[in-house]
Amino acid sequence: MSRAITLARIPEGVPQPGDFALVDATLPPVANDQLACVTRFISLDPYLRGVLSGRHLGHTLSIGEIVPGSCVAQVSASSSTEFAEGDWVVAESGWREAFVVPTNSVRKIALDLAPPSTALGVLGMPGLTAWAGITQLANVRAGETVLISAALGPVGSSAGQIAKLLGARVIGIAGGPEKCRKVEQHFGFDLCLDYKASDFAEHLASACPNGVDVYFDNVGGYVLECALSKLALKARVVLCGLIDQYNQSQRPPGPNLGPVIGARATLMGLVVYDFYPQFPEFLAQVGAWVKARKLTWLEDIAYGIEATPGAFCKLMSGNNFGKMLVAL
Amino acid sequence: MSRAITLARIPEGVPQPGDFALVDATLPPVANDQLACVTRFISLDPYLRGVLSGRHLGHTLSIGEIVPGSCVAQVSASSSTEFAEGDWVVAESGWREAFVVPTNSVRKIALDLAPPSTALGVLGMPGLTAWAGITQLANVRAGETVLISAALGPVGSSAGQIAKLLGARVIGIAGGPEKCRKVEQHFGFDLCLDYKASDFAEHLASACPNGVDVYFDNVGGYVLECALSKLALKARVVLCGLIDQYNQSQRPPGPNLGPVIGARATLMGLVVYDFYPQFPEFLAQVGAWVKARKLTWLEDIAYGIEATPGAFCKLMSGNNFGKMLVAL
Repeated sequence: MSRAITLARIPEGVPQPGDFALVDATLPPVANDQLACVTRFISLDPYLRGVLSGRHLGHTLSIGEIVPGSCVAQVSASSSTEFAEGDWVVAESGWREAFVVPTNSVRKIALDLAPPSTALGVLGMPGLTAWAGITQLANVRAGETVLISAALGPVGSSAGQIAKLLGARVIGIAGGPEKCRKVEQHFGFDLCLDYKASDFAEHLASACPNGVDVYFDNVGGYVLECALSKLALKARVVLCGLIDQYNQSQRPPGPNLGPVIGARATLMGLVVYDFYPQFPEFLAQVGAWVKARKLTWLEDIAYGIEATPGAFCKLMSGNNFGKMLVAL
Repeated sequence: MSRAITLARIPEGVPQPGDFALVDATLPPVANDQLACVTRFISLDPYLRGVLSGRHLGHTLSIGEIVPGSCVAQVSASSSTEFAEGDWVVAESGWREAFVVPTNSVRKIALDLAPPSTALGVLGMPGLTAWAGITQLANVRAGETVLISAALGPVGSSAGQIAKLLGARVIGIAGGPEKCRKVEQHFGFDLCLDYKASDFAEHLASACPNGVDVYFDNVGGYVLECALSKLALKARVVLCGLIDQYNQSQRPPGPNLGPVIGARATLMGLVVYDFYPQFPEFLAQVGAWVKARKLTWLEDIAYGIEATPGAFCKLMSGNNFGKMLVAL
């Protein structure tokens, strides 16, 4: 017998303790290729909020089910030669005191690096997230300005430190002066800005006089809006989380970046001026197609200089039919 | 003497003909390395709306100034051996009947491909935009599903045809059934959807059962929102225009993609699950930093299985201080 926490009702807004229930759970016997484990640390992560509302990448949870999540545990009984009693492991075992799982579903923890609880943070999923965003997606280079939201959290704090170790200038964003101080003093960020301060946007502007080369976004919403307005040329933005809207039942207006994250999509700003050096290459390919009439065009033509303002108004009303031109 | 169109007042909302004025303009004499030209076609392009409001990449325009823009013109007098009377050129000469410009500011038009007016469309800036987005940024491959908004316009219609020529399945989006028919029949798109139809979102979903691999966005707003919800895994989105908001004095709520375009930025969705195969690589690099205590962590620990719901609620209120854990 051991205890576990189940979902009692789907939370609305910020979750309440009453959304959950403490229950007794029986443990099955340990079969071949299974381990019995005792939980030592339960990981609490913001993505769980989406799971509770059925909004996280297809995960759903029914009322009465044990809340899922990662744990650090110690093996209490093993039918495998790979694991001995007392071994430390990470398991996706949820909110419970003890559990029995297949041996191939757990990962053994390297104890020589740091205490085992870090397998749920800096050396686990949040650390991997930070590393992937900084080194695999944004490819941060020495000398760049890197901006990171939720900077005191396990993803943000690791991302910032990794960027620092790679030679970047790192600015954090957190909520309130106490968190900001901790980000600077404990994690060594060059600076941390309080997004709750009324002059946050001004502080951000003066902290990034040459713009932001890489923004690692964990929050979405207002902070993302401010950061997008400070991007340097060829900036990269890692869209990693939308904590700002996890508690909201209605998503905020405007383009929804949730599906962009889910699709691992890439959004790229296009300004045609950048491609004028490639005009000959364009003309060679598209010009040949046009000459062969494999590629065609459509023109909506007004006549006379006097007709120009009216033609422009027609274009901006969406009433034109093809490329809008004035012939003189 | 020739005539030109100037800005009479800054437009509010959809531009009105009264926002402009027809004026007489004197032409200077033709100096060395200059050309006198007679305008044959004036190009009208949506980006001009931003210029009129001082919102386009730093371009601004004062009241009384001649409205800028591209033109196709014929040389009427030349002091250069490179250009003869009658030659066709593209110039950034604005809304006027005639002009004098430096020879190095114009581009001669290749007349063997198509009529000279196409130098302002399919073989000019809009065509280059389409080609750059499809071939240089999105890198469209045969068999992919490509979605294109403002599909009857010169950018969208070229982008769709180029994608078709590269072997993609191409779906257009346009306003109203007449435009949609034209996109399908004149430009050969596989399908064109009317975003003004009440069931547009459903039509889009059924037209892209496997999702959208590449979305070429010229409009922003509602159409972008719908498209983002239909992205396939590893989708690429070319952010090229925001016609939907060009006439608005207040930009719509939510993340503003205007500065993303201006910065030529890349936004990348990160889902950590994709990187678990690289866990050993992560642990080698970050684990070494952690072991050397060059990289640190911070834990906010609650105690006992009963404390788990409260600790999760604390996390989701943003009141935690570092990685949230429950120790058992």
